[in-house]
Amino acid sequence: MQFSSTLLEALIAEITRLPGIGRKSAQRIAFYLLRVPADEAGRLANAILELKARVEDCSICGNVTETQPCALCADSRRDGAVLCVVEHAMDVLAIERTAEFRGRYHVLKGALSPVDGVGPDQIRIRELMARVESGGVTEIIVATNPTAQGEATALYIARLMQAHPSVRVTRIARGVPMGSDLEFSDQITLARAITGRKEI
Amino acid sequence: MQFSSTLLEALIAEITRLPGIGRKSAQRIAFYLLRVPADEAGRLANAILELKARVEDCSICGNVTETQPCALCADSRRDGAVLCVVEHAMDVLAIERTAEFRGRYHVLKGALSPVDGVGPDQIRIRELMARVESGGVTEIIVATNPTAQGEATALYIARLMQAHPSVRVTRIARGVPMGSDLEFSDQITLARAITGRKEI
Repeated sequence: MQFSSTLLEALIAEITRLPGIGRKSAQRIAFYLLRVPADEAGRLANAILELKARVEDCSICGNVTETQPCALCADSRRDGAVLCVVEHAMDVLAIERTAEFRGRYHVLKGALSPVDGVGPDQIRIRELMARVESGGVTEIIVATNPTAQGEATALYIARLMQAHPSVRVTRIARGVPMGSDLEFSDQITLARAITGRKEI
Repeated sequence: MQFSSTLLEALIAEITRLPGIGRKSAQRIAFYLLRVPADEAGRLANAILELKARVEDCSICGNVTETQPCALCADSRRDGAVLCVVEHAMDVLAIERTAEFRGRYHVLKGALSPVDGVGPDQIRIRELMARVESGGVTEIIVATNPTAQGEATALYIARLMQAHPSVRVTRIARGVPMGSDLEFSDQITLARAITGRKEI
């Protein structure tokens, strides 16, 4: 025991398990929690317990939700003909923030990665195909990450969708990010930006 | 609402209040908690609740503890004649890790800082004097931080202790930290290192 309190040690150990939190940060957080009023610390603890008890995946899109279906699937103002396919629920947030997309989502919960044992059956590809086959979908925007796994997943989906020629399959544009310096762009990004050029 | 779950939003808001955690890190942690088994998340929540319910200050030294007095004050193998005065309970840990000190501690819970309204009555100076006056103390090692506030606190304690000439008051050495480069040492540290030089 390093502290004179095993409870403090236990909390530090639990906080250290969180992603991106080292031992020093965990200590700082634990001492912070020791200092704040009990109801503030209680709110954090209860928020964790409530989350685990009540938040689940949307039965339609796979997004996180505490209602079935989720608010985005239930929103009749959104266009059900366009599905945006993302890897994770956090990506839904990123796209929602752009306010550029008014369709619906499909969260894969991962990307194809054969070396990690992640094949089509480990992510929600089957559910995506079922949604397409139930009709009404005219476009699938594949917004998986611009990584090897994300690109492989996008290609795999595009190939599966050849069975549904009436559905357009698109991929979000890859190119130089806004506000960046060309000289700092990596080769592949710059090459993609050139091949993907558009009339102005 | 940015996510389709208000509970997730609520948890992210609570996590963002923690020190050193921004919105992005809070999101990552919240999604991590969503993914882990319920009992792992439950352990974290319960560790927070237990901490708030049962951890308090040691009635003698002010260190964090769930027993009265704390394990360090209760340990009869430690030398009660030497008190190490620190600003915060975290400093006790730092000193314990060195395994150089076998006396007892006194946690001030702060340092003098008149501009922030912290005077001698706002930190545990009175309790320190009471311990000295109850007898048995032969040395006080002042291990407050080497900052303006920590130095002022050390000087203040040294002055108070002039009423007890039998008690030696020492200050931890300030100098260049081990493993560092002289050229990167700041002026004040290097000046302290020179004036505090020792025979080798």
